[in-house]
Amino acid sequence: MTFSDIFELLESDLKRVEEKLHSNFRSDVPLISTISAYLSNSGGKRIRPILVLLTSKMFGYNGGERDIVFSCVVEFIHTATLLHDDVVDEAELRRGNMSANHRWGNEASVLVGDFLFSKSFSLMAEDRDPRLVLSVSEASKNLAEGEVLQLVNTCNVETTEEQYLDIIFRKTAALFSSCCQIGSVLGNASAEEGRAMMNFGKNFGIAFQLMDDVLDFVGDFDKLGKPLGTDLIDGNVTLPLMHGYWNGTDAEKERLKQVVNAHELSQSDLEEIVEMLRKYNSFEYTVDLGKKYAADAQKELEPFEDSPYLEALKSLADYTVEREY
Amino acid sequence: MTFSDIFELLESDLKRVEEKLHSNFRSDVPLISTISAYLSNSGGKRIRPILVLLTSKMFGYNGGERDIVFSCVVEFIHTATLLHDDVVDEAELRRGNMSANHRWGNEASVLVGDFLFSKSFSLMAEDRDPRLVLSVSEASKNLAEGEVLQLVNTCNVETTEEQYLDIIFRKTAALFSSCCQIGSVLGNASAEEGRAMMNFGKNFGIAFQLMDDVLDFVGDFDKLGKPLGTDLIDGNVTLPLMHGYWNGTDAEKERLKQVVNAHELSQSDLEEIVEMLRKYNSFEYTVDLGKKYAADAQKELEPFEDSPYLEALKSLADYTVEREY
Repeated sequence: MTFSDIFELLESDLKRVEEKLHSNFRSDVPLISTISAYLSNSGGKRIRPILVLLTSKMFGYNGGERDIVFSCVVEFIHTATLLHDDVVDEAELRRGNMSANHRWGNEASVLVGDFLFSKSFSLMAEDRDPRLVLSVSEASKNLAEGEVLQLVNTCNVETTEEQYLDIIFRKTAALFSSCCQIGSVLGNASAEEGRAMMNFGKNFGIAFQLMDDVLDFVGDFDKLGKPLGTDLIDGNVTLPLMHGYWNGTDAEKERLKQVVNAHELSQSDLEEIVEMLRKYNSFEYTVDLGKKYAADAQKELEPFEDSPYLEALKSLADYTVEREY
Repeated sequence: MTFSDIFELLESDLKRVEEKLHSNFRSDVPLISTISAYLSNSGGKRIRPILVLLTSKMFGYNGGERDIVFSCVVEFIHTATLLHDDVVDEAELRRGNMSANHRWGNEASVLVGDFLFSKSFSLMAEDRDPRLVLSVSEASKNLAEGEVLQLVNTCNVETTEEQYLDIIFRKTAALFSSCCQIGSVLGNASAEEGRAMMNFGKNFGIAFQLMDDVLDFVGDFDKLGKPLGTDLIDGNVTLPLMHGYWNGTDAEKERLKQVVNAHELSQSDLEEIVEMLRKYNSFEYTVDLGKKYAADAQKELEPFEDSPYLEALKSLADYTVEREY
């Protein structure tokens, strides 16, 4: 199954998600509606809503609005994080457009992020299932902790693989895992089935972030919608760089430190670093780890009966680690 | 009843609140614990927890932990807002200490605020009462909207009284109202009693903010713990200033515009503006409106049976509008 097959499978649901996102972006404070709509129209693959929808359908959820509501909840949490992350990183580009903070200022980014957080908790409160509020609030807590850990480790080329994996679990995989938990609860899965799906989401999320971190060095600008090397510019030390550092000569180690601490990056700096990391197979190392996590994710799906939704989840894991790099 | 009588009445409860705040500040991410503890130790009157405690006790809530838990919830929401507000305002002082963003950077302030938001929703999810999640999430949404409205109106001396009251309702009174709703729910108040208490909280919150806006011009540095005139520096147009603007000569109007737009303020600028506002009785105008709201708040309490908790709530409203100015 390709990504567009998955989109087709969920076409009518994703359309309902978009409609609900837009109606919830409305606020009687016009700037909030403007920024929210701007962000929403900037695209994004809606990977978190897709996880909610596929998991709930896999367990036979049908006929209600709750999958659509929770798709909005997780997308709002994600969007709020992007907004706050832009403040943190002072990113100027987000998905190929000027980032919200650059266009409206840090203040607006912080506050509209807060609005979206609150909105997502209002939606959950209306749904009235405390298990889901708990799942999403724990994921949000992990998200904030992951971002703080990343901040604390800024420019630290001696971050360990264990620390790095902990950071990407918190900042990416925890919410993916929560999406799958939500789908399981909506579809009345057993506790054991729910645990398997949460593990799927967690492992898939780690694989997804590992690949993202590779693509930040060697991806395709047009497909990523953001310039390459932003992690380097932000002093965000990711696994490919760490691997290069472990293997580099003393001179190369010094050079890596210098580039990470520079907070600016020329095209030739980037090419130099990419070449160094290729020499030590640092991208392969990271991709291989991503493939291991994707395989672990798929393993969790083995006990389940075959269905197009199960197929789609398996394919998502494949697709993630086969993205071009 | 004086403020210290109220503190005495709630002494053991407030002690439990402090302990619970501290235990919840803990995170396995050390920077989060450090910043949270720093903020917590910076003081603050715990006015929101006091509202939760007094209202729940007034309706006979007794013996559980829920009043303590929700005291932490509302204090976390408030602290998160302060952190995000510091980013927005670039405030250097908060309660007389260096503000968190000045000490640790905007990034940390945003992220620790997000952590506290998430923490408060986790606590509520564990409590499992959707009415309370809804109440607090609506209040948070209002808070974010109020801050955005304030941002949009930055330096706008032509803000109307209606717009201003809407802003202070959202950014202050909505959470006060939610505190009283929480207390009512915990104490099993009737729907009608709950509505009265929410109105009390709302009117009290508006009175409280009106007085805060007066004290920002003419308060006592040692008591406020922050320099005077911060609203002027931030371009935050409040009622005393608006009133001066309505009544000023053309030259005075121009001068007010100039000061609001300058984003810096000398001692003599501040004295000049204060003198102008005194001339037009702009502080009296604002305090009188505060007294009206405080009286409206107290009126909501009339139907209730007398108790030390009811007395304390009445006294809070008095105390607010009698603060020195």
